[in-house]
Amino acid sequence: MMSPMISKPMTVSGEFQRIARFFAPLAAGCDGADGLTDDAASLTVPVGQDLIVSTDTIVEKTHYLGHEKPEAIASKLLRVTLSDLASKGAVPAWYTMNLALPGRIDDAWLEAFCAGLAADQDRYGVALAGGDTVKTDGPVVLTLTGFGLAPAGKVLRRRGAKPGDLLYVTGTIGDGALGLECARGGFLELDWSARNFLIGRYERPEPPVGLGAALIGIADAAMDVSDGLIGDLMHMAEASDVRAVVQATAVPVSDAAAEILSECPDRLTTVLSGGDDYQILAAVPPEKEEAVRSAAKEAGVAVACIGEFMEGKGVSVQDADGQDIPIAQPGYSHS
Amino acid sequence: MMSPMISKPMTVSGEFQRIARFFAPLAAGCDGADGLTDDAASLTVPVGQDLIVSTDTIVEKTHYLGHEKPEAIASKLLRVTLSDLASKGAVPAWYTMNLALPGRIDDAWLEAFCAGLAADQDRYGVALAGGDTVKTDGPVVLTLTGFGLAPAGKVLRRRGAKPGDLLYVTGTIGDGALGLECARGGFLELDWSARNFLIGRYERPEPPVGLGAALIGIADAAMDVSDGLIGDLMHMAEASDVRAVVQATAVPVSDAAAEILSECPDRLTTVLSGGDDYQILAAVPPEKEEAVRSAAKEAGVAVACIGEFMEGKGVSVQDADGQDIPIAQPGYSHS
Repeated sequence: MMSPMISKPMTVSGEFQRIARFFAPLAAGCDGADGLTDDAASLTVPVGQDLIVSTDTIVEKTHYLGHEKPEAIASKLLRVTLSDLASKGAVPAWYTMNLALPGRIDDAWLEAFCAGLAADQDRYGVALAGGDTVKTDGPVVLTLTGFGLAPAGKVLRRRGAKPGDLLYVTGTIGDGALGLECARGGFLELDWSARNFLIGRYERPEPPVGLGAALIGIADAAMDVSDGLIGDLMHMAEASDVRAVVQATAVPVSDAAAEILSECPDRLTTVLSGGDDYQILAAVPPEKEEAVRSAAKEAGVAVACIGEFMEGKGVSVQDADGQDIPIAQPGYSHS
Repeated sequence: MMSPMISKPMTVSGEFQRIARFFAPLAAGCDGADGLTDDAASLTVPVGQDLIVSTDTIVEKTHYLGHEKPEAIASKLLRVTLSDLASKGAVPAWYTMNLALPGRIDDAWLEAFCAGLAADQDRYGVALAGGDTVKTDGPVVLTLTGFGLAPAGKVLRRRGAKPGDLLYVTGTIGDGALGLECARGGFLELDWSARNFLIGRYERPEPPVGLGAALIGIADAAMDVSDGLIGDLMHMAEASDVRAVVQATAVPVSDAAAEILSECPDRLTTVLSGGDDYQILAAVPPEKEEAVRSAAKEAGVAVACIGEFMEGKGVSVQDADGQDIPIAQPGYSHS
């Protein structure tokens, strides 16, 4: 459907069967979804918690290539939103999903798509609460709305970074953008396993969901890196009314990305501004450095200090000698 | 937008400006939306309340014709979900919105679309909490997720109707389906004002949002009528494991619909099964009849008793002589 799952209007023919077969099992872990047999879900938010809501829409051939396995498309759809929730300090709990599908999407595709969701539900502890499925003559359009929980009033915002705060980032940066180029036939000189690694990172990001909630009480501000490290950092600096300086050599990259950078140093721009990273960027007061490292260790997430905030405006990137590196095209825009 | 509004990933070029100009004003009434400048909204659900969530996707040329005014499309998008929330006994509070828009959708369209939303926000007391806007090469695909509040554990379900309960419906039935035919050039013999009335009901339904919450404690079961009275009633009967009998002559119709029925009595099927009504169907115990009528009066909503529930299965429709009327094609499916 899920028309009849949470919104029965405008049912697609045969969708009741699809709901029962493919989607209802995904809602087994959400009591308030009522087996996707009703028009709405009823969610109970624990006292003392706020509901954190984030939503994303991805379009075939714009936000993903279209030839990915349905399992991977499902993972990407869910994970880009889990990345947002984690960066706000929320523990993910539920999600709703709206699928606009052309006729060529058959049951085999849906089965694989839902298998991808099922695996990620186990991995991240979330359950389907409802949704809607409709037909379209255009490309596949997938919307996912994620619901997380955070202590009341404590949601992490982009604003809040202070002069003197250190700039931390999780995981490695640049793999998604380089992976997209690999998937489009680029970097053919790269060895097979490195290309495959990068493509996998593009197709199926791994946001540090386990670390998110631990950042509340540690970070002054946080957001996820999805439109490119520098572009997103510009938003954080602007919202916080501070200036950010990034040490390029401190930005963590994967072995595969390092291999590309050693051959093509000018690809640093792709790494720093390419997007599709789905990592967390956090402003951490110096006295909380040990706390952030300890929380990251406990969550099994790599973190690195890549710069700092100071009085002023804007973002600059410095090389090992403290010289500014010009970074073109900050942020990534899907056309 | 609203990428950066609640989900900044995958930003469409120029969307930051669109968010600030068109969408941020709609979020002024939702503190937790943070002016649509962050990746997620933070919603506070009052203690003792559950969050009721319903979501719908509508596609240009499938769920609306495409030539409607953008204001009306916006209203329909919002109201079909408010109809679901009301039928579950929820008071609407917030919504998120995901727009997949082809390049031909310009700022003038968006401005009118958002004006329609602004007017409905005032009318129904809701505010925008977040969303996402992306580009598509296909038709416009609009998703709206509505959030309402209901006393904890009291959400009205389709299940719960008991033998002996009376079947109540709000407003008039059939206008939406007949209006769609008018909009497609049908019923040309009908006078101008009647056709316009019906088209208006199709384009801009008026769900009885004010009555919803009052039904908690009165109705044993409720749902909204959107796929056709008979088809939706079949779902309620099945979920409740009871049989429903509808008195055809008791089903409330508008003057315009009555005019059509007097000329074409076989259009009763369209009225009873056509869909797009966005009214509430409720199972009311006989001892609550006065309560439901009094609540409806207070909300300024018309209600009518159109039948009853009994032991058994299925739905039947009877004429004034108690004879079964065969109703073909129960429920409406958008192809």
